[in-house]
Order: sequence, then C-alpha cells, then structure tokens
Amino acid sequence: MPAQANVKVELLALLARRDVAGMRKYCEPWLPADLAPIIADLHVEQLALLFRATSRELAVATFPYLDTEAQRKLLKTLSQEQVAALLNALPPDDRTAFLDELPLDVAMQLLSLLSPEERAVATSLLAYPENSVGRMMTLDYVAVKPDWTVAQVLEHIRHFGYDRETLNMVYVLDEHGRLIDDVRVRRFLLSPLERPVRELMDGNYTTLFPTDDRETALETFRKFDRVALPVCDEQKKIIGIVTVDDMLDVAEEEATEDIQKLGGSEALDEPYTTIALSRMIRKRASWLVVLFLGEMMTATAMGFFEEEIAKAVVLALFVPLVISSGGNAGSQAATLVIRALALGEFKLRDWWSVMRRELVAGVALGLILGVIGFLRIAIWSAFSGIYGPHWPLVGATVGLALVGIVLWGSLVGSMLPLALKRLGFDPATSSAPFVATLVDVTGLIIYFSVALLILRGTML
Amino acid sequence: MPAQANVKVELLALLARRDVAGMRKYCEPWLPADLAPIIADLHVEQLALLFRATSRELAVATFPYLDTEAQRKLLKTLSQEQVAALLNALPPDDRTAFLDELPLDVAMQLLSLLSPEERAVATSLLAYPENSVGRMMTLDYVAVKPDWTVAQVLEHIRHFGYDRETLNMVYVLDEHGRLIDDVRVRRFLLSPLERPVRELMDGNYTTLFPTDDRETALETFRKFDRVALPVCDEQKKIIGIVTVDDMLDVAEEEATEDIQKLGGSEALDEPYTTIALSRMIRKRASWLVVLFLGEMMTATAMGFFEEEIAKAVVLALFVPLVISSGGNAGSQAATLVIRALALGEFKLRDWWSVMRRELVAGVALGLILGVIGFLRIAIWSAFSGIYGPHWPLVGATVGLALVGIVLWGSLVGSMLPLALKRLGFDPATSSAPFVATLVDVTGLIIYFSVALLILRGTML
Repeated sequence: MPAQANVKVELLALLARRDVAGMRKYCEPWLPADLAPIIADLHVEQLALLFRATSRELAVATFPYLDTEAQRKLLKTLSQEQVAALLNALPPDDRTAFLDELPLDVAMQLLSLLSPEERAVATSLLAYPENSVGRMMTLDYVAVKPDWTVAQVLEHIRHFGYDRETLNMVYVLDEHGRLIDDVRVRRFLLSPLERPVRELMDGNYTTLFPTDDRETALETFRKFDRVALPVCDEQKKIIGIVTVDDMLDVAEEEATEDIQKLGGSEALDEPYTTIALSRMIRKRASWLVVLFLGEMMTATAMGFFEEEIAKAVVLALFVPLVISSGGNAGSQAATLVIRALALGEFKLRDWWSVMRRELVAGVALGLILGVIGFLRIAIWSAFSGIYGPHWPLVGATVGLALVGIVLWGSLVGSMLPLALKRLGFDPATSSAPFVATLVDVTGLIIYFSVALLILRGTML
Repeated sequence: MPAQANVKVELLALLARRDVAGMRKYCEPWLPADLAPIIADLHVEQLALLFRATSRELAVATFPYLDTEAQRKLLKTLSQEQVAALLNALPPDDRTAFLDELPLDVAMQLLSLLSPEERAVATSLLAYPENSVGRMMTLDYVAVKPDWTVAQVLEHIRHFGYDRETLNMVYVLDEHGRLIDDVRVRRFLLSPLERPVRELMDGNYTTLFPTDDRETALETFRKFDRVALPVCDEQKKIIGIVTVDDMLDVAEEEATEDIQKLGGSEALDEPYTTIALSRMIRKRASWLVVLFLGEMMTATAMGFFEEEIAKAVVLALFVPLVISSGGNAGSQAATLVIRALALGEFKLRDWWSVMRRELVAGVALGLILGVIGFLRIAIWSAFSGIYGPHWPLVGATVGLALVGIVLWGSLVGSMLPLALKRLGFDPATSSAPFVATLVDVTGLIIYFSVALLILRGTML
C-alpha cells in the first residue's frame, strides 16, 4: 500500500516542521474514517499536534483505533475543552468501551465533562452488565414509517443520515414506536422511488436484548449474516443497534480468553506486551498454585507405592512417560470438546455420543502407545540388561497401563468440560494442564495397580 | 424470536401435507436471504421438497447455510437439471467453498454441469491456493467511472445492482479499467444527486492480492474496519472483492486451528461431531506418538539416575510433581506468547523484551511454588517420618529444583514459539503438551542435578 506509506511520511514531515496550516490542508480532502487507521500508530504527541491542527472529526474517528494506553495519554495532552469536545462527539459505543477500561474515578471525571444529554447516554450504556450487548450499542440509527415511500426514505437519510457503519439497515417502526421490521438500505437503492416502505418489508427480523451476553450476539450475527442487529426492550421498542464491525473484535477477544484458559492461566484481559508484570504474575500464579496443590497428590500416591518402588526401581523410570501420555491424551480430548462446545457443534445432552467416540478413540490411541511402549522396552532389553531379566513383564505392565491411562485420559478430558458446563462454569476452565494434573494422579494409581497385578510374585 | 419459530412450524405443516401450492404461497413474500437461515436446519428431504415447490433463489440463498454433508445430500435428491440450475446460480465464493470440500471426481462432475461462463469462473477461483484470498472472492461488484454523477450511479445500481452483501462499496475505475478508489454506497445516499463521483473520492483504498493468505485479509479487515475489500492484480485491475461476512468464519476457523494445535493435536479441519472416527484417531495419534517418543527420553534420563533413586527412593516420589510444574509453567508461557503473536501484539525482533518478562515471571512463579513445595515437605515431616531424618535437605532439593524448572519452563515456553516462527513454522505447533514434554526431560536433569548437589554425602 504505497499510497498509505506516503501519507504517513508526508504527515510526519509536516509534523516535524509543526506546519499547522500544511497539516490542515493535507488532511482536508480525506474522509476522517479513512485517515484514522493510517495515523493510528503515530506517537501520541504527534497525534495531539495533528488533532489541534485539524478537524475534530479526525480526532473522533481516530480515537477508537488507539489502544487504551494511547487514549489515556492523548486525553492528558489535550486541553479540558478539547477533551470535552472529543468525548461528546465520540460514538456512544466507542465511548463506553473506553470509559469501561478506566479506573472509576477517572471515568467519573470524564463523565462530568459530557453534556447532560451525552452523559445520560453514557451512564445508561455503562449501567448494562460488562460484556453485555447494551455496552456495545450505538444509538444512531435510521428509523422510518411503513407508509413512507422509497423517495421519502432516501430524502430522510440524505437529511438526517450519519456517514457511519450504522447506515446499512433502516428500521421500520409502527405508530407506537415499536420495531416491526428491518430493511437493508440497499433494497431502497434497488426499488422504484414511489414504492411504499411497506412493500419492502418481509416482517422477518432478529432482535437482541440489551442484557444479552455478547457471545449471544456473536452467535446471532454468525447465524444470520447481518451487518447490524437491533436491540429492543420487552415492549419491542428499539433502544439501539449493534454493528458487525464490533463482532470481529468480540470473536477475537472470546477466542483469546478461551485460549489463555486452555493454556492453564487466568485470562489476562490485556495484551501480553502491555499488562503490568505484577498483574500477569498474579494471574498466572493462581492457576499454577492450584495445579501444584493438585499435583501434590502424586507425591502422596507415590508414597503409597514406596515399597514397590524400592523393590523394583525400574518401575519408577517409566512413571513420567506413562502418566504424561495420559495427560497428553486428556489435553487433546479436552481441547477438542471445549472448542466444539464453544462453536455450538453439540449440546450437553449429546454427551453420550461424545463419550462413545472417546471410548473408541481412547482404546485405539492407548493400544498404539502401549505397543510402542512395549517394543521400546523389548528393543532396549535386547541390547542391555537395564530392565532386568523380567523385562517382558515390565513391558507388559507399561503397555497395559498405557492402554488404561490413555483411555482414562480421553474420557476425563472429554467429560470434564461437559460436567463443568452442566454445573454452570466455563468449560474452558478445564484447561489442558488441569486435565493433565487430574490424570497424573489417577494415572499413577492405574500404573501401580497394573504393576501389582502383573509383577506380584516375580519382582514385587 | 417467536415469529421465526412460527415460520418453521407452519412450513413443517405444509411439508407434511406436501402442499406445494401452499408452500409456494407461504414463501413468496419472503426475501430468500431472510428465510434461508431459518430453514437451514430442516431435514434434507424436506428442503428438497421445499426447493422443488419454490423459487430457485430460495435454494441458492439456503445452500451456503448448510454444512457440507447436507449440501451433498441435497444435491443427490435433486434432478441433474435442478443441480445444474442451482450450481450456476450460486454466488461464486460460496460455490468455490462447496466444491473445495468435495472429492476431486465429484467436484469435476459438478463442474461439468456449469455453463461455460460459470465453469470458467469456478475453475479460475479453484486455481488459487487453498486458504488464499482468491478462493473467497466474489465477482459481483459495482464499478463506476469518476465523471458520473451521484444520480447516474444510483440509477446504475438500481438497474444492474444485485441485492447482496457486495452492494456496500462502489468501485471507481479509470479509463483503462484500473481501480482508482472505493467509495461507500452510503456516501452516495448522503450526497446531492448532481455531484460527480470524482468529488466523493479520497484516493484512499486498500487492496488485496488474490494470492494473499486469508489471514492477511483478516488482519486488513480488522485494521481498516471495512465491509468489503477489492482484490486486484499487479496492474491494479480489479478481479473481485472479499466481504466481511466471510471474515467472521475465517476468524473462527483460524482460532479453532490454533486451539486444536495448542491442545496437542493436528487441526481436525472438520467439526468434532462429524469427522470420521478413524480420521480423528489418525490426526490425534500422530502427535501423541511424537510426544510419546519425546517423553521416552524421560525413561532414559531417569535411567541415568537409577542408582540415586535406589539409594533415596524418596526422590522418586516428587518426580511427577516437580516436572509437571515445569510443564505447566511452560504451557502458560507458550500459550500467551502464541496468542500474542497471532494477534500481532509483538514482532520477532521484540524477543528480548519477551524473554526479560519471562525471566522475571519465571523466577517469581518458581519461588512461589518452591516455597509451597518446601512447606509441604516440612509440614508432612512434622507429623510423620515418611521423608526421613534428612527432610530439610529433601525439602531444599524440591524447592530449589522447582525454582529452576519453573524458570526454565517459562523460558522454553516463551522462546520456542518465536524460534518456530523464525524458522518458518506455525508457532501454534509448539503446543502446551509439546512444551511440557520438552520441559519434562530437561526438568528431570535439573531435579537430579540439584539433588546430587544438596544430598551428596548425606542421602546419596
């Protein structure tokens, strides 16, 4: 994109010369919405200079592209008056997202800079629960009556329309202001001018509640391929709309949360590169400690078999191999099931069909590893005496234990997320390390039980 | 959404009566695009019946909502002629996605049903590499000349426009057919009718190449908040466009791939619930076997310390605890770094700042676990003699080894994805289980080395 690289170079030159008139002239022909993503990674000081020189629209358009850190810094470099103007002009959904990231006292200060109307809007949006549809709403939308003509609608848009994402759908309200349909703007473009709105309606629309979780919104967008969805109250009165451009971000954030939990950490909720180190350590430590406490039971379990280990030290050699295989099988199963649940591929009531699949997969995978494990011991024993004269029995113990443990890992890994979901927890909490820990402890018991069964009378 | 539930119930009643006229009448007032997602989960036989009764547009609109299995079944229930009509009418991007999922011979058969023009289109799209932008292109877009007026553009759209997602942007071409700008359709709605297109242009646009990876497209969409991006060749000739509605699916698929790899499995590339069991087992077995072979080195490593274990069996008791803690720390670090890389939060050249963070985090996390580990041994020893008279030395061994292993796990987990990326591999390959396995082997060596250092002369 050479054109855009040039823009930045030329703007930087103007900024370096502090050429206010030049900047204004340079930016003037651009649509703020187009310039915003290009300049978003300039330094905050440069942005502040640029925004002082140019239109407020550019600042408003650029603001949502900045990360929270840059947003805060930018506000600090602007005068109180400029901050107020900027905040008042920001689209309500972007403003809510920004205020939400701030400490309460700073947010309150900024709220006090808003005009009474905008403050009422901001406060009402912030009153919705975190991660709810209400927080993502924007309040600009085009509403029309069913008896208007296409020409009237186009005239209305030309007069009152905003040049924003929100101008993709037109909402048709009845005489009581209740939503009766949504019609794509392009349908108006494709219809004869004298046609009444009524004839473009099909009575089919999907609405969200402001208290819906944003994951619900994401699913609805995916299912219905819409660019915007109306948010209504119980009386079908339209409160605002949510647009698809926010959904890419939601999808990304939700995936990040799931991935981080799967990796055995609390969700950071902030970028890895900018989160305070102490906060990151705290978030990681909590899970590591939980896992550590769980894993302590392996020491207890091993303690029960101390006598066996003393008699047959060779058994201890395979402990990490055997139990980690169970953990790996469990991690796989848990990850696949958690992702399938998140994508809505199956429901809780399908647990039996999942379990059946994992039974088959677990036995098959266990047999594969069990055979390899046995062969490894057989081959090593052909060349050295490391596993003693009873190596076939040791091999059988390891091989058989592997079948049991891999099967057990697959079952635990696949069922635990379902159980967590059934109990109302986030299935992604049953992370790979969590499953691995659980399977480690039980795996030890399986391993030594098999050993007792096979080796009693010979080595034990 | 009671309205939609009703639709399905009423349609099912008509289908049960095989009331062809009734179905046609019932569906007639609907926009196919609105009805499609509602009926998409009907049985294939019902859909076939419905599509025979109603307009071809409904079948075309519904087809992309079906999963591959249902699509195949549907085509089998339709006559050759109906299949040809349906395939010819499908939007090229949806058709490409469908054909791509089929075995080559079936795809070839279907291609032969297309009209020569549509076959040329389909073949050219399928010629682009898998997961490339070319595969996702659609070829319907609105192109105008810079000297047209707004009124002319609106007239052109009304005459030649399609009622599709693609009607959100208008592409301005110069006399040689080269792209010179893209303008949002709504800008035409907001402008006086006599204004020339030239005055709506800002010369700012972003293009994709058909050979670009779809992840590149996703990043560009995220960065520029567009609803559609033009795809151009080297001469700036526009080939097609890509729309944002396909991006939600791409984002989802990419996240699924990453998550499955992180869980220590090959990406399934198919839903968990419908993938053939044998194929799933194969995909899972390959990684399990690799991990198993890697983990075998733990048996070898433990073999080196067999003598020490025989002398101090108590050391063996803590092996699972100590090495799994390193694995967990490594999983955390790897997951966080892989996700941050996927989101573009930092670049490879920032590796040193990542390493510095992980050094601090690793030492802090190691100290936390080390202290807990020591306390556990101290407390148990206060009540029992299980860890022998030298328990303070055993505790010191476990505690110190934990610091080293957790630090080592954090470093390996964070640097391995960066190294893989540097070498041109997918960083997500360094899954949690992969890192855990690597850290298990090295963790054993750290643990027993610390033991030799501390316990020599007393227990060893």
